[in-house]
Amino acid sequence: MATFRVVLVEPKNEGNVGAVARGMKNFGVEDLVLVNPVPLRAEARQRAMHGVDILERARTVKDLEAAIGLTVGTSGIDTESEKRFARIALSPRELATKLQKAKGQVALLFGREDFGLLEQELRRCDLLVKIPAAERYPILNLSHAVAIILYELFAAKAPKLAVREMSGLEKEKLHASFMGLLDATDYPIHKRSRTQIMFRRILGRAVPSKWEFHALMGVLQGATKRIQRLEGKR
Amino acid sequence: MATFRVVLVEPKNEGNVGAVARGMKNFGVEDLVLVNPVPLRAEARQRAMHGVDILERARTVKDLEAAIGLTVGTSGIDTESEKRFARIALSPRELATKLQKAKGQVALLFGREDFGLLEQELRRCDLLVKIPAAERYPILNLSHAVAIILYELFAAKAPKLAVREMSGLEKEKLHASFMGLLDATDYPIHKRSRTQIMFRRILGRAVPSKWEFHALMGVLQGATKRIQRLEGKR
Repeated sequence: MATFRVVLVEPKNEGNVGAVARGMKNFGVEDLVLVNPVPLRAEARQRAMHGVDILERARTVKDLEAAIGLTVGTSGIDTESEKRFARIALSPRELATKLQKAKGQVALLFGREDFGLLEQELRRCDLLVKIPAAERYPILNLSHAVAIILYELFAAKAPKLAVREMSGLEKEKLHASFMGLLDATDYPIHKRSRTQIMFRRILGRAVPSKWEFHALMGVLQGATKRIQRLEGKR
Repeated sequence: MATFRVVLVEPKNEGNVGAVARGMKNFGVEDLVLVNPVPLRAEARQRAMHGVDILERARTVKDLEAAIGLTVGTSGIDTESEKRFARIALSPRELATKLQKAKGQVALLFGREDFGLLEQELRRCDLLVKIPAAERYPILNLSHAVAIILYELFAAKAPKLAVREMSGLEKEKLHASFMGLLDATDYPIHKRSRTQIMFRRILGRAVPSKWEFHALMGVLQGATKRIQRLEGKR
């Protein structure tokens, strides 16, 4: 299975951060990244319990970094972009099933306690996950959300499948080629962004192999070059 | 499905009790019983968030009452009686599956933060549940344990999300468009068949929605038409 990184984006409550570290320890995930967090003091350490080493080794960054591997966004609040993609948000169990075959690093993004992940943060995600909850009050405590997702991933651990997945670099090349094709075909500017996100999400769910990456690249670049050559001749 | 009651036995941390109330609200369980709890003050209310009504309506009792219906004990620490029943402890998922057919009231017992449920308390349980967790540190925060179990019970009764998948006809149209693009780009004949299969497999894994079908069709047909138009002008 993949290795997991938990990324908390601008957590506002240090107790939650501590509780997340404990939950990570409970489910064997050690890599914690804090994006522009509240200062961590005594309460965070206290709530971390035996997960305090995870808290101490947590990396603090100012901005969301470029993800190395697959990026999974979590959400409970309906943002604009989520409504748009609501129909393809996975449940934690579906995520766990999907990632059973995955290798490499998977970053799990959790947003602010009040506003969740912002539009531009959700855009960077290859997959979206939503924890099923009561309609009247679907907003879980941050550490509860982390615990439930890590619990599902832990429960799903199974023998690895020998699939060579495409790398993060290849993924970005593929997205660039897709954009190149949209460009070449004069795809309407106002539709490009959401079409791009659609393509990212489809690939996120499909987890293509290296071979599939090369084949798709061939198709996209072949079409783009064809158009460019023909336009050059015009 | 059955109705659920959460019973916290001698909780020592009022913040945990509040967080449990919130988790209950998230998963639509309203009935909370506190056995000889720590006094609840501001922190419990604060952590309960929108679950504060559950906290206010919680019943406080001095001793564990005779359960009305099925009693489920939860545990993470190995006590003597737990070792004895270890082989029959269910996972949360197995519990949820089992209780899908159950009716009447089910009491879910959660023990103290440090010692869990005592021998005589475990004896009263009809079922034991254990949350799978890292061997090195299997003791979850009390509210995390409650949240994970209620999440499983909720997920078991939640209707599957109604995703409007693309239809078989749409799927075939999409494959035809993909072939059309390969045609238009003079994609090597000997590679076409396997590239086509690759595309089919990717879509098979991604299970695109109707919306994604239309967006992909737009991209493929747009590129193909562009090429055809340019070639016509040549």
